[in-house]
Amino acid sequence: MDRTENSFPSQPVIILVNPQMGENIGATARAMLNCGLRYLRLVNPRDGWPSEKADAMSAGALNAMPPVQVFDSLEDAIADCHTVYATTARARDLVKPVMTARSAGTAMHQDIHDGQKIAILFGAERAGLSNDEVMMAHKLITIPLNPDFSSLNLGQSVLLVSYEWSQGVFNAPEITTPLGKSNPAPATLFNGFFDRLDTELLATGFYRVPEMKDIISRNIRSLFSRAHPTDQEINTLHGIVTSLLTGRTQK
Amino acid sequence: MDRTENSFPSQPVIILVNPQMGENIGATARAMLNCGLRYLRLVNPRDGWPSEKADAMSAGALNAMPPVQVFDSLEDAIADCHTVYATTARARDLVKPVMTARSAGTAMHQDIHDGQKIAILFGAERAGLSNDEVMMAHKLITIPLNPDFSSLNLGQSVLLVSYEWSQGVFNAPEITTPLGKSNPAPATLFNGFFDRLDTELLATGFYRVPEMKDIISRNIRSLFSRAHPTDQEINTLHGIVTSLLTGRTQK
Repeated sequence: MDRTENSFPSQPVIILVNPQMGENIGATARAMLNCGLRYLRLVNPRDGWPSEKADAMSAGALNAMPPVQVFDSLEDAIADCHTVYATTARARDLVKPVMTARSAGTAMHQDIHDGQKIAILFGAERAGLSNDEVMMAHKLITIPLNPDFSSLNLGQSVLLVSYEWSQGVFNAPEITTPLGKSNPAPATLFNGFFDRLDTELLATGFYRVPEMKDIISRNIRSLFSRAHPTDQEINTLHGIVTSLLTGRTQK
Repeated sequence: MDRTENSFPSQPVIILVNPQMGENIGATARAMLNCGLRYLRLVNPRDGWPSEKADAMSAGALNAMPPVQVFDSLEDAIADCHTVYATTARARDLVKPVMTARSAGTAMHQDIHDGQKIAILFGAERAGLSNDEVMMAHKLITIPLNPDFSSLNLGQSVLLVSYEWSQGVFNAPEITTPLGKSNPAPATLFNGFFDRLDTELLATGFYRVPEMKDIISRNIRSLFSRAHPTDQEINTLHGIVTSLLTGRTQK
């Protein structure tokens, strides 16, 4: 993953244009690495580079990334890039495609798959990118947020855009239920418990209205089935029934 | 949207359990309101409540939200909730469904559509939620991030989970190209420009190999068509052609 003169990372490069506070550069690096992005370029950082404040805020990210590259002009910073995305909070009077962060995240993977080198521009705190800077981008990214309170700080903007890219990398099942050392109970165990419960409920007079028994019994079975207990949990349920029965007998 | 004793917001309530620094509570409020979430509850904030540091970091969000509610115990804080989500960074030895932030964002809209009152728990800085606290949740949320560098600060965790919920609220077209005051050029304007260009190219000897003319001409038309110019841009293109021709004539 080391970057040499002739290689370009197969992931977006993040470019901060005229960033002001070192803290925000550090927060950017942390957000990037959270999302697996490792290549940061700076155009004219106001307070110079390197920055102790950036190091402190990056929570170790800057040390784990290749060296940050510093440029005098945006043109130099994007010279080797095929497609440039620019994040903007407000609409611009420019005829350029505007994408959501989500659709841009997907599009960037396609760009990279097509062999393109791509960059994402973020403007300075407060002012954002100038129109001249935005002009150098091919596509604009706007994050759909609460229109009455949409101002994000720099690190948060970088986090959301990087996150959308990262979701094409760090896949996870949408939903999963880890079972630890236990297995989901096989049907014979589950039914064994339920048959026992039903027998005990009948013996203890739970089913007061005989014609309702089938419906109520089915509902109870459905309740336990929905919980999809493990075999350990079936053992626990047996213990609960035993304990309750014992208590009643001793009374 | 005001919350009274008998109403519960039709959006997730965010609950910070044992939060430490006021700054992080403020950052949480800002991230929430960015995503349209307005209801924040605190369980035992270490440095008390209200907090000047929280106000400063919230960038005005705390003033725009209903008053934050403070509770002595998590049980009290979730007492009126039907379904409780808990965010965890690490796997737990618990048999509970674990969802991605994205799938949880979708599921919460369904919960609310079904009439449920829901809450999302976030643990203290560093330690996160204890196992006893996680036990009170029905579903766990884990954000898929760089496994080698996955530690988020509290405000960033709240931002990503809230953002995923918000994308079901603040819809935006995946991609759009705003045209400002100009319209996309009708075909007659576009073709008029291209026919002129082609005529001038022919006259100026651009097509050196006659049998290649059709292919090259088609490629040029395709290039301009891909740009999908507005009528203003067609005028500009005419001006460019005129200017170039004039320069040549005067030479």
